[in-house]
Amino acid sequence: MSQKTKTAITPIRSENYPEWYQSVLKAADLSEHSPVRGCMVIKPWGYGIWENLQRALDGMIKETGHQNAYFPLFIPLSYLQKEAQHVEGFAKECAVVTHHRLEKNKEGKLVPAGELEEPLIVRPTSEMIIGHTFSKWVESYRDLPILINQWANVVRWEMRTRMFLRTTEFLWQEGHTVHATKEEAQEEAKKMLQVYSDLCYNYLAMPIICGEKTPSERFPGAVDTYCIEAMMQDRKALQAGTSHFLGQNFSRSCDIKFRNQESELEYGWTTSWGATTRLIGGLIMTHSDDDGLVLPPKIATAHLAIIPIVHNEEAKEKVFSFCDHLARELKKVHYAGQPLNIIVDKRDMRGGEKSWSWIKKGVPLRLEIGPREVDAGQLSLARRDKPHRETTPVSAHELPHRITQILDEIQDNLLAKATAFRDQNTVKIDKKSDFYDFFTAKSEDEIHGGFALCHWNGDPAVEEKIKEDLNVTIRCIPIGAPEEAGKCIITGEPSTRRVIFAKSY
Amino acid sequence: MSQKTKTAITPIRSENYPEWYQSVLKAADLSEHSPVRGCMVIKPWGYGIWENLQRALDGMIKETGHQNAYFPLFIPLSYLQKEAQHVEGFAKECAVVTHHRLEKNKEGKLVPAGELEEPLIVRPTSEMIIGHTFSKWVESYRDLPILINQWANVVRWEMRTRMFLRTTEFLWQEGHTVHATKEEAQEEAKKMLQVYSDLCYNYLAMPIICGEKTPSERFPGAVDTYCIEAMMQDRKALQAGTSHFLGQNFSRSCDIKFRNQESELEYGWTTSWGATTRLIGGLIMTHSDDDGLVLPPKIATAHLAIIPIVHNEEAKEKVFSFCDHLARELKKVHYAGQPLNIIVDKRDMRGGEKSWSWIKKGVPLRLEIGPREVDAGQLSLARRDKPHRETTPVSAHELPHRITQILDEIQDNLLAKATAFRDQNTVKIDKKSDFYDFFTAKSEDEIHGGFALCHWNGDPAVEEKIKEDLNVTIRCIPIGAPEEAGKCIITGEPSTRRVIFAKSY
Repeated sequence: MSQKTKTAITPIRSENYPEWYQSVLKAADLSEHSPVRGCMVIKPWGYGIWENLQRALDGMIKETGHQNAYFPLFIPLSYLQKEAQHVEGFAKECAVVTHHRLEKNKEGKLVPAGELEEPLIVRPTSEMIIGHTFSKWVESYRDLPILINQWANVVRWEMRTRMFLRTTEFLWQEGHTVHATKEEAQEEAKKMLQVYSDLCYNYLAMPIICGEKTPSERFPGAVDTYCIEAMMQDRKALQAGTSHFLGQNFSRSCDIKFRNQESELEYGWTTSWGATTRLIGGLIMTHSDDDGLVLPPKIATAHLAIIPIVHNEEAKEKVFSFCDHLARELKKVHYAGQPLNIIVDKRDMRGGEKSWSWIKKGVPLRLEIGPREVDAGQLSLARRDKPHRETTPVSAHELPHRITQILDEIQDNLLAKATAFRDQNTVKIDKKSDFYDFFTAKSEDEIHGGFALCHWNGDPAVEEKIKEDLNVTIRCIPIGAPEEAGKCIITGEPSTRRVIFAKSY
Repeated sequence: MSQKTKTAITPIRSENYPEWYQSVLKAADLSEHSPVRGCMVIKPWGYGIWENLQRALDGMIKETGHQNAYFPLFIPLSYLQKEAQHVEGFAKECAVVTHHRLEKNKEGKLVPAGELEEPLIVRPTSEMIIGHTFSKWVESYRDLPILINQWANVVRWEMRTRMFLRTTEFLWQEGHTVHATKEEAQEEAKKMLQVYSDLCYNYLAMPIICGEKTPSERFPGAVDTYCIEAMMQDRKALQAGTSHFLGQNFSRSCDIKFRNQESELEYGWTTSWGATTRLIGGLIMTHSDDDGLVLPPKIATAHLAIIPIVHNEEAKEKVFSFCDHLARELKKVHYAGQPLNIIVDKRDMRGGEKSWSWIKKGVPLRLEIGPREVDAGQLSLARRDKPHRETTPVSAHELPHRITQILDEIQDNLLAKATAFRDQNTVKIDKKSDFYDFFTAKSEDEIHGGFALCHWNGDPAVEEKIKEDLNVTIRCIPIGAPEEAGKCIITGEPSTRRVIFAKSY
């Protein structure tokens, strides 16, 4: 092995992947821990990614006919309880509001007072409160479908949290729909999975597998849970979005009934689907490298950092005004439906230090501009998807005409790279011993495993055993995978198609 | 008096203003009560207004140099307590989380379990959690100013709630900034008040008065509270946004310190400012009439409702395709930075019924289109700011070129009308008996009062007395009002300028 290259992030991925992730977050100034257990602060650079992602996804949700609305943060306990499986699924992680004011006790200490007659649960998801509301909106088949989305915060009291990937409070959108027929609701659940898939491919440059969860991994109360699963650089799977066909389970518990064309009363067929700030975690772990964050241009907080390099006051005005002018021209250019966001970094710091700060923040393009570049009108463009010393010459005059094409190239490169990585680490395995080898690290921190495409007999006990032995689960039964006769990797029993096994977040 | 005209809303404003307001909300399908005490459901038609308002305000907040971020929903009790006045102001209306899971008790009933060591307060406002975070962001004067905004939900346990105007949970943005000098922080607080004022005038067509609160009406912990006050059609004032200069109060309690240019440690100077979903309530009460909601075009959920009128199947295809084509052309037009939102109402209902539904929903423009209109290419455009039978002829061909101008006219008309109403009901009063008369209803439900510009000696006891006697408060000391020698309306003591007294929401 050659001498170790100096990197902006320590430890590097191969040394300690979880710590590398935390270091990337910190170096890019994306987020930080808050004094509230398991809750994070999303800093402007991270929130900018969320805003772009939200804008893209919101547009797609509206294009597919949904409307936004807003429902209460709190769910009365009696409502949450109406669906037995649902409440069981969330009971262990509910933040409970029990009082509605504070007052001083005898020692002068402020304590909760005004106990509520009924505790309120801070929504972990909103099926029960939205379902109750829907029951008042639906009378006839003419009122259907109801296609609603909500952007909101939710709380699930998690014991082990990790910024963006699993936090006690997180931001998300949750879609909730009611349909007159089973077929229409099933179609809706699959359609919204496809929307998530499009978001991942077209904006996050994140390849995913669309699949269906096995019964043991379903959303509490769902009939079918569909999911998208992405592969991180430690080869673990990240569930990046889910869409549920809820059958009539929630209609029954929320009393969502309608009169059909024959004037008979029927329960509605419902779906729900959600994507969260976890997508940002997935994005980071898909593209970032040992120099820090790498942002796909289509959701990048900023597209280009212009770094004026001046060594004396005389040059300063000339260089600054050139940079400002260039930035103004470039801001007129639209990309992904928005004006380009161009940063001119006039901080009084060494040029190298400034450049590295933007490398670590993942800005797709960088330009260091000194008096020589100003005089020649010739610039050296650095791309975040290339080694940091490599630059491409471009004239200042041409850049506004070429920049969107260059950004598209970066976007495409990132997707191609991530897809290649995933494909390299996706293998068909047919022997039990190979399977156990695949998911067993040779040394403590070794990055190992990947997606194992294997036959499975459909028995939850097999899933249980594999989870216990290897901490590996069935991530999904891929949608559209070819039928193929084979034998279960554990029991040898016959199976008709392969499922994806992996370790996961 | 002439015979009573038939109106779409009952009761009408002059009969029972509070009930009229509830009826308008219902008829426009803006919102509804939820099963959670004091919390509302914002339905798509209402949420669309919020989205437009958010987009406009978010743009202005960013243009003035602020960045969005996100902070936790929960505030540990010990943090809220750090500022004595602040916690006192909010202690009576705090939702308190005391447990983090649910478990079955001996009777099999689900009850709160997992008591927290320290109760968490659902944020009523975020000064204390954001201030704590800022204390870690600031080291030197070079880190200042910090200019942050957050879009979030907040909870204040209100005893008497009214949809949009006062709800237990509401949506808002809260800006929080830190500055190196007192002057800069004061300027920031005033600048953001001006942003709110611009939002009201330019988007909501809602005239407001910019002013400063008296000490008794200040935000808990603030040095100065600035506000915008609007007049509703029952002549009561609505506080529509506030901006606070917090001095060094919160910096001291949150330990926000920085090294100045002389390397000395100093406390930062902070501000905070917020505007909420209450603005939608203000909007409704400013413009709506006895036929329902009236929406200013710049924040309207939709701009035009096209209502095909067909009496037989044969005409249907021709009329529908004409309407669809017209809608497509109009959707290419941008207004207030967004494509026009055009509705083609193909519901199988009588034309009159459809038209009335859009009148009640406040859509600025309506077009009823039948076979005759299609053949002639001549349309009759109805405007929500004119009597419902009045229409203007316009050719289908011209409409895409004229529509933004017509929308601007409506926008201007609404502002002019609201301004005239406010001015008609704003009076200078110099005699105590006149003052008491002005604020006393002649009959139980009579709409009376308005803004009374009066002299005041600056004594909180006078405010207290007037509040007790008449339920009237000083809404604000108008900014930029001329100095004028006069005598306090109650005590006769000398005063240098007039303040605004009014009943309020």
